[in-house]
Parts: sequence; structure tokens; C-alpha cells
Amino acid sequence: MFVQIQQIAREAGDMILNAHNAPTHQKEGHFNFVTDTDVAVQEYLKKELLALMPEAKFFAEEQENESLTDAPTFVVDPIDGTLNFMRGRNMSAISIGLLEKKRPILGVIYQPYADEMYTAALGGGAFCNGKPIHVADTPFENAMIAIGTSPYDAELAKKTMKAAGQFLLQAGDLRRTGSAAVDFADLACGRADVFFELRLRPWDVAAGALIVTEAGGEFYSLGHDTPYFDGPCGILACIPGCKEKAMAILSEVLA
Amino acid sequence: MFVQIQQIAREAGDMILNAHNAPTHQKEGHFNFVTDTDVAVQEYLKKELLALMPEAKFFAEEQENESLTDAPTFVVDPIDGTLNFMRGRNMSAISIGLLEKKRPILGVIYQPYADEMYTAALGGGAFCNGKPIHVADTPFENAMIAIGTSPYDAELAKKTMKAAGQFLLQAGDLRRTGSAAVDFADLACGRADVFFELRLRPWDVAAGALIVTEAGGEFYSLGHDTPYFDGPCGILACIPGCKEKAMAILSEVLA
Repeated sequence: MFVQIQQIAREAGDMILNAHNAPTHQKEGHFNFVTDTDVAVQEYLKKELLALMPEAKFFAEEQENESLTDAPTFVVDPIDGTLNFMRGRNMSAISIGLLEKKRPILGVIYQPYADEMYTAALGGGAFCNGKPIHVADTPFENAMIAIGTSPYDAELAKKTMKAAGQFLLQAGDLRRTGSAAVDFADLACGRADVFFELRLRPWDVAAGALIVTEAGGEFYSLGHDTPYFDGPCGILACIPGCKEKAMAILSEVLA
Repeated sequence: MFVQIQQIAREAGDMILNAHNAPTHQKEGHFNFVTDTDVAVQEYLKKELLALMPEAKFFAEEQENESLTDAPTFVVDPIDGTLNFMRGRNMSAISIGLLEKKRPILGVIYQPYADEMYTAALGGGAFCNGKPIHVADTPFENAMIAIGTSPYDAELAKKTMKAAGQFLLQAGDLRRTGSAAVDFADLACGRADVFFELRLRPWDVAAGALIVTEAGGEFYSLGHDTPYFDGPCGILACIPGCKEKAMAILSEVLA
């Protein structure tokens, strides 16, 4: 089934690569959009994933969702990085997590522009295009920090920039891709050392959390004792050696 | 000659694509590095470009440079985005500007990972892979803002984050690629609306300034009345409709 999910993600990636000038619609909040392609890709993923596993539930960005249950549940972002997609930035990904008992057991992130398929099954390690991947081992003072900005919420945006400023002074440099799935994948394969965002939704993190931890990284849901996938939540993902200083910066900003 | 410069840039791009685990060296300042590949690509570019135009001078990142003169001068960054290159982020570019009388008359930015060749000759428009490109027409409140962070200078980094915070609240969202050449190219082809960095060197901006202006955008050297390519300088590049608000944010931070 794992291989079939990857094949479905690849087909969805082709839909994204072949979409041009998709009609765009404003969603709730400042600077939050959905395109007809997001909806079409989600419909495709729903149909194919539920055909593969009819007993599963489907939880995704572009629909109303009920609360997570312990049942097997696909948690899906059809285009993570919608704004990048709208602006032709070639930096978006499909994110598919499979949860059981509210914990990820399979994760697939497919970045169609780079043709990079990131995968992890619980306890089985993480892979990019079939090759094992592992997080980097960078000292915090040189760490590459991926940030999410929460542009749709002014208070969170302000706190984000305060934290980002501290990271820039204490660590190496910042990156902002505009796709959480890409940031998780980058962290898992050693291109970044820390990724934080002060509010993400379950479909942004379900696959990435598993891929990062299976690659030797750490994943924290801010304000929760254990990883949380049942609603919006801030997250920190990082290499083990950067956890203490990264968490100190975020704790101070959120205090 | 313009076509030959592009061919030289493409060959240099192949050197970058084929380089792996290049030895790395610290340069002056925090978080400033050079790899053996930067040096090898620069040597290749110097040899080929001066063979093409023996009367030209050569001004580049990984060497000591004399002041610019009015003579024809190639102003070159062999790998713009060295840290991205070191971390395997696939987001770096070769930047070649040809200046005469201290003004760019030809500009080439080649992004080898995406195989995108951005070109402009003074008065002739801007192109990506031979197709005409033009900047976007985004209202400031939705503008995509590319930022450079100046991580090697704490004071500039603080001012940068102050400005970035203002942009995040007043405009759309931020991006940080880690390559100024990529940011200029993104602006020129409509993927971003504003790019600022509080200190760049001539080799970071010579090609990009021309490509952006030939694509209908604007380029400003902060603190100078006209574009300045003779030393370090802050820059603002933007679509015409975003100039006033972007300059107001930068002026307040720099005041």
C-alpha cells in the first residue's frame, strides 16, 4: 500500500505541474487563498486513497473536517504552498499522512518540481526517492533556520518575527520557502536544522512530523506534551543538537 | 557575444551541478563561507570571459578588486547562494554583469538547478530561456517580499528584521531564498514584487539590476541618487506600484 500511495502522490504532482493559471479564491483571513487546482488535486487524492483503503477516513485542507478519531485517517494537503503555486515559484508539495490512533504511521511528501519523493513508515527510517536520509549535525551557531510566518494573523506574525530575529542573531541564517512540507523535507535530508511555525494545521504536519523523526530529527507541538494532530498548533522541528536553544527562543516569544 | 556569455554561464552551471562535497572555508565575518567550487567556477568564468573580450576588466567575489573604472568590466559572482550550495538546497545562481562607464549593459543570471537563463541587454528587454519576461502588477497589500538578511552583520540583521516585520504586516508574505541573484530573477519574472537587502556587493547586483529594470521593474541603491556598483550598498528592487510603500519602510528603518 505504501508504494501505491507514492504512485498516487506522483500522479497528483503531475496535475500540479500541468496546471496553469488556475482560478483563485480568497479564504478566511488575510492572504489565504485556494485555487481550483487545490480542489481538483484533493478530489483526486480522496478518490484514490479511499479506493486503496475504504475503511479509512479522509481529513484535508479544502473541506470541512470532523475531529480526528482513533480510526485510520488520511490527513492530506493537496498543495502545500498554494501561494508559491499561484506565483509560479515552483516550491510546493503534496503532503499525505496516514494516522492511526491519532499518530502518524505513514508519511509521504512529494515535491513535483524537484521530483523528490520523501517517505517514512513508523520505525522504518526516512527516504528520499528510495535512498535513506538523515538530519544534519550542525552546531546551533551555524544552524539553518526555516521559518513559517503566519501572514494571516498579525499577532502571530509579530511573534514570529521576534523569534526569527533572535534566531538570526544566535544561529546561522534564515530561509522562508512558503511550504511547511518542503521545510520538513529539507530538515529531514539535512538542508535545514530548525523549522518553526507558530500555527499549522494537521494536514501541514502529519506527514512531515513522521518523516523528520524517522530521519533522526525531533518534532514538538508547542503547548502540548505529545505531538498533536487534532487542530491548529505551533510546531518546532529540529535536529537534536539545536532543540534546547530553539525551544528557549520560542518559549520566550510565546510567554 | 551575448550568446557566448550565456553559453559560458551554462558550462559554469554544469560545474556547480557536478560538484559534491566541495571543501569549505570561512571568510571574514559571521557565517560567510567560500568553497573550492566557488573558486574553480570563478577561474573558469575569468578565463572564458576575458578570452571573449580581452580588453575587459574582471571584478569578482572571490578575489581582491580595484575600484571600478569606466572601462568594460565583467562583474561576476560565480556562485550566488554559496550557503545554499553547501547545504544542497539547489537554490544558487551564476551572476554575470558587463558594465561600461560603471553602468550595466548586459546581464546574465543562470540558475542551473532549474535550468533557467535570465538575460537582458540595455534597452532590449528581459528574457528567461529566450522568452520575454515582465514584472507582476500586485497591489502592495498582497505583495510577495523577498528579503536578504545580512547574517554576517548583527546591526544590519536587526534592521533587516525590523523592516521585514513591517513588510509582513503591511504586505503579503515574505520569502528568503538565500540568493540575491535568484531574488532578482524571481522579481523580473513575476514571482516576487519587492526584494530588499541592506548590504550587497557589486557582483550580487550588477546583472540583476539590469534584468529587473529591463523587465519593467525598478532598482535603487539605498543612499545613492543613481544605481551604484562600486562597493557595498543596500538595495531595493520592486515593481513600480510597490515602490512608495517599500521605500517608506526602508527609510524608517535606516533613519
